[in-house]
Amino acid sequence: MIDKTEIERIKQVIVEKLSSIHTLKRVQKINQLVDEIAGQEERETESLSSEEQVVTPWVVSGKIDHDKVIEKFGCKRIDESLIDRVERLTSRRAHVFLRRGFFYAHRDLDKILDCYESGKKFYLYTGRGPSSESLHLGHLIPFLFTKYLQEAFKVPLVIQITDDEKKIWKKLDKEETKRLGRENVKDIIACGFDASNTFIFSSYATVGGKFYENVVEIADCITVNKANSTFGFTGEASTAKMIFPSVQAAPSFSSSFPHKLFPDEKKNIPCLIPCAIDQDPYFRLTRDVAPRLDFIKPALIESKFFPALRASGNNGKMSASDANSAIYINDSAADIKKKINSAVTGGRDNLEDQKKYGANLKEDIPFQYLSFFLEDDAELEHIKKEYGEGRMTTGDVKKRLVQVVTEIVERHRMARAAVTDEMVDAFMTPRPLFE
Amino acid sequence: MIDKTEIERIKQVIVEKLSSIHTLKRVQKINQLVDEIAGQEERETESLSSEEQVVTPWVVSGKIDHDKVIEKFGCKRIDESLIDRVERLTSRRAHVFLRRGFFYAHRDLDKILDCYESGKKFYLYTGRGPSSESLHLGHLIPFLFTKYLQEAFKVPLVIQITDDEKKIWKKLDKEETKRLGRENVKDIIACGFDASNTFIFSSYATVGGKFYENVVEIADCITVNKANSTFGFTGEASTAKMIFPSVQAAPSFSSSFPHKLFPDEKKNIPCLIPCAIDQDPYFRLTRDVAPRLDFIKPALIESKFFPALRASGNNGKMSASDANSAIYINDSAADIKKKINSAVTGGRDNLEDQKKYGANLKEDIPFQYLSFFLEDDAELEHIKKEYGEGRMTTGDVKKRLVQVVTEIVERHRMARAAVTDEMVDAFMTPRPLFE
Repeated sequence: MIDKTEIERIKQVIVEKLSSIHTLKRVQKINQLVDEIAGQEERETESLSSEEQVVTPWVVSGKIDHDKVIEKFGCKRIDESLIDRVERLTSRRAHVFLRRGFFYAHRDLDKILDCYESGKKFYLYTGRGPSSESLHLGHLIPFLFTKYLQEAFKVPLVIQITDDEKKIWKKLDKEETKRLGRENVKDIIACGFDASNTFIFSSYATVGGKFYENVVEIADCITVNKANSTFGFTGEASTAKMIFPSVQAAPSFSSSFPHKLFPDEKKNIPCLIPCAIDQDPYFRLTRDVAPRLDFIKPALIESKFFPALRASGNNGKMSASDANSAIYINDSAADIKKKINSAVTGGRDNLEDQKKYGANLKEDIPFQYLSFFLEDDAELEHIKKEYGEGRMTTGDVKKRLVQVVTEIVERHRMARAAVTDEMVDAFMTPRPLFE
Repeated sequence: MIDKTEIERIKQVIVEKLSSIHTLKRVQKINQLVDEIAGQEERETESLSSEEQVVTPWVVSGKIDHDKVIEKFGCKRIDESLIDRVERLTSRRAHVFLRRGFFYAHRDLDKILDCYESGKKFYLYTGRGPSSESLHLGHLIPFLFTKYLQEAFKVPLVIQITDDEKKIWKKLDKEETKRLGRENVKDIIACGFDASNTFIFSSYATVGGKFYENVVEIADCITVNKANSTFGFTGEASTAKMIFPSVQAAPSFSSSFPHKLFPDEKKNIPCLIPCAIDQDPYFRLTRDVAPRLDFIKPALIESKFFPALRASGNNGKMSASDANSAIYINDSAADIKKKINSAVTGGRDNLEDQKKYGANLKEDIPFQYLSFFLEDDAELEHIKKEYGEGRMTTGDVKKRLVQVVTEIVERHRMARAAVTDEMVDAFMTPRPLFE
């Protein structure tokens, strides 16, 4: 904990010592810096001691309490009545990710539903930072969910491939991030998006023209101090990092898109962003900035983190940099089996205990994966009961998961094999979407 | 002056006070900040007390000592032998701005001459921030000089209209900066540039594609701390200001230009930048960054500031925001006469003293203006002698200046009237320049 009186005393000393040689303005500046640093220290100390949870767009670590994240970020929980309303308006069952509480937080989703209900159009925006050759299951989640939203609401979708981000943060070669981006686009297309209503674009290829104009407008509303406090940047951060939040923000505003992607008469079209909750800081800033630029604040629908195979329970999110913690879309059936068999489970040490106590489902990755990928509610409920009460073994659950995941991966592999370069070009060509 | 022991003592106190509650890293950070602030304070105190001279890309004030500026910035003086070499290589007399010492500093100009001598190509890059409807004489200077360089060396030229800069710094409306930019382009074209070898471009229209890729590369090499120390930015600066130096840097590298402006086989073409010395900080950074990106450092040829009509001697530079301090390209003959007649002079209070002591030419704006715009060396020498020794009156000199300036402005007005929208479009269309 930070001792507030101590901070005040330090500031006192600084004023005394410096005021003889510095202008008052400078002394105030130093004091402000001490306050900022103390505040930052305090926030870090708090999160480390009480939760050991760090959630930023680049680092997700520690034992994540998703309720605390909502509270800290200031977004809203998606409740049953909101899910009911989505089902009513779209005349179809909510996606498993929504009805099983994986997409669990939002901002202004109710307003997007109002807009839809009154017959007005909106559009979807999601994205991907291309840092690996192949996607893993965790990467697929937002796209599978976005596909559901696009089908359910019949709205246009823009997908930003932030190749510039990976150059800036991961120090990947620029041409390599562009190549990975294009490979990732094939995986995204393989999820089955509607070609007539989806625009996939790379930052490198799209920043410019109206898009750059909006980047400048947005960046001009965000001070360096604000960027630092939102993202934890310091003076050692590159100036490229300073501009990137505005590059990620720009697609939230329909006027950023050139080539009549959206018709002129609909310049200010509401936007809904499905994303994982760690992206919230970007869009909190974007929403702060929107009214100053006469733009509509983008709405958000935000997911929890997809758990890693090897980390226990809800620790961290699946990482592209630890190949064994994740199932990749191009893993072989044998790989999948091996990885699932080595997953962390909540099963007991021996069969006797398992029968007696049942599995600890909260710590059981195979069961959690089933709750993502097993469509059949009845079967999932059955497994939950049987496994949780000890009548099913970890081996049974893993076996079922291997079947389910292998099927998904196999289906994806076939779909991806059918994606041609011409299809990639077609998705990536700016063209009218609202027609 | 800053007392170094005092700063050390302050840091000591901060370490003692903060180390109980802060990590060592934070304490080091605070110390670094105190050092930075003290350094900034010191630089400001120095320049204010000894020279009262402030030179940044946005502020030029105080009594400017151009020698001190060279020393502070670390560029080199252009000496007689360098001017001789330019004349020999181009087989023509050096421009008056060069031979009369107005363009007086450089970086790597000798290397550009080596390059030219060995038959290799280079290109010229200059720019303009469009903040006013019409240019004034001071704005014209770099363009007149650049035109001479283009003609003498027969090289391509790119001219950046930084409409984004004026949005970010002057808070002008984006559309207004674009409109002013286009008006300014007409004045620039009227200077007589070679249409087949000149590309004029607006930042808003050009940032994107290869250009944006280079902006990211450059910005990624510049930390926020570096930008702060170079330009005097603080945490209150907008993130848009953080990216702009990279936008101004990008045209220094030939690979930034799309549409085969430069042929593929000549991707890394040396660049020479004629500019006023206050732009040096931008290109110092650009030159620092170049080797890290395998780009050639741009060379510079830098001018003193064009004096204002109403400020004494070499005080500050002509400002677009004080209309009476400058002669505008669209001023009427009557305006010009009135403005020149109210200029600050080095003439004596009465005719008797003038005859006795002669004029103080260093403080005489009309004479200085003649030294810019009167081509005839013999006549200028004559006026210098006669006026300086009291045989000519201020009235005579002003009268001659009115003639010279009116003729320049009249010639420019006619040239500008002949500039069509089609010509503007032609200059602004990306197209191969090296052919």
